[in-house]
Amino acid sequence: MSADQAPLTVAQLAQRLQQFADAREWGQFHSPKNLASALIVEAGELLEHFQWMTEAQSRSLDADKKQAVAHEMADVLLYLVQLSSALGVDLMAAASEKMALNEQKYPVDVAKGSSRKYDAR
Amino acid sequence: MSADQAPLTVAQLAQRLQQFADAREWGQFHSPKNLASALIVEAGELLEHFQWMTEAQSRSLDADKKQAVAHEMADVLLYLVQLSSALGVDLMAAASEKMALNEQKYPVDVAKGSSRKYDAR
Amino acid sequence: MSADQAPLTVAQLAQRLQQFADAREWGQFHSPKNLASALIVEAGELLEHFQWMTEAQSRSLDADKKQAVAHEMADVLLYLVQLSSALGVDLMAAASEKMALNEQKYPVDVAKGSSRKYDAR
Amino acid sequence: MSADQAPLTVAQLAQRLQQFADAREWGQFHSPKNLASALIVEAGELLEHFQWMTEAQSRSLDADKKQAVAHEMADVLLYLVQLSSALGVDLMAAASEKMALNEQKYPVDVAKGSSRKYDAR
Repeated sequence: MSADQAPLTVAQLAQRLQQFADAREWGQFHSPKNLASALIVEAGELLEHFQWMTEAQSRSLDADKKQAVAHEMADVLLYLVQLSSALGVDLMAAASEKMALNEQKYPVDVAKGSSRKYDAR
Repeated sequence: MSADQAPLTVAQLAQRLQQFADAREWGQFHSPKNLASALIVEAGELLEHFQWMTEAQSRSLDADKKQAVAHEMADVLLYLVQLSSALGVDLMAAASEKMALNEQKYPVDVAKGSSRKYDAR
Repeated sequence: MSADQAPLTVAQLAQRLQQFADAREWGQFHSPKNLASALIVEAGELLEHFQWMTEAQSRSLDADKKQAVAHEMADVLLYLVQLSSALGVDLMAAASEKMALNEQKYPVDVAKGSSRKYDAR
Repeated sequence: MSADQAPLTVAQLAQRLQQFADAREWGQFHSPKNLASALIVEAGELLEHFQWMTEAQSRSLDADKKQAVAHEMADVLLYLVQLSSALGVDLMAAASEKMALNEQKYPVDVAKGSSRKYDAR
């Protein structure tokens, strides 16, 4: 992406992915069930980079590793966006709603500095 | 989100997540290693909704199920965006790059209608 | 494995894995956290074989695919057994307990023929 | 399991799982594709226990947490064994083969003490 381009939006990415799949007639394979499977497979490839690292090592990746990780992250996003198209889910609206729920669920005074943060669910 | 609001961008979501984690002092837990783990855990919760469905069933969710699935998708996105912040990765630029690579890797004439699409990697 | 050997038990497998890791001084990397990560990464490699198949296709793998799948299944088991050693968990006893719980949780007359089987949890 | 019982073997567990599923007519849902999905979902529930822990914390679980983790591990094993039955894979033979391959792939003198152990694949 050249430096003077506006950043891609999620809606634009969704459209580009739709055209990509349509041209290859891949809609037949892209059931939500299959897309959710493909997503977690990519999430596994992402985690694989970190599995034997210490947390500290994971905070200071070299450039090559960072690039490889970025591409795995992109794969996760590509399936997530395709899943949102297949289901008719507005991904950014869902994210906004979920953030609002999290703000209620984890009040600052209770959750502050606690690693037990998610244990209540 | 009210209908007249502009949709949230990924950059805005990243900022809001940063403020949320900072207020709770959760940065100490949010190593890339841990965020990649949390992401795949959420991807598992997403897949759980589909695991016993047929593909056809997954294409026609009722409203309640669709809402539940949307929130799991949001959880995946929230960790993906936090991971991109932690690593200094431009998620949308990475997605754009990955799409360009996929267009080279799966030429239309070769990949059309084939479920073996990803087997070459 | 020659045909006249007794089948390997889980306890023997655990012992062989311990020797393997000890000889390579890998115990330092084999925290339960890391082993649980490695396990899900292998589970992703296993699922990858099936992600674009129909259910019917997954029921009739050819010999090469079946062999590849068997090795991914083995990888999952190897990490599961190493995790049980690291935690001091008796894996087969835990499986037996869990089966007894499942028998209570899913009575035959309620669960028979229903794909909603696991939705109650 | 009473203390004087012989430990359950994998073959016995497979038989008990088959009877359990047959009685509930669940074979229709238990395609290898679905079982591989269910397995990774359980692997996610297992990893969830560890996601915010340090490695050191994961090495010293309290009794309640250890019990909860043992049951998630059992769930992974139950699906792995059901998958092996569905595919006609001898799980322990596959594990033995995979160990032999790993012994060739990671010679002691090369792999000793290196966290890069699996990077070569």
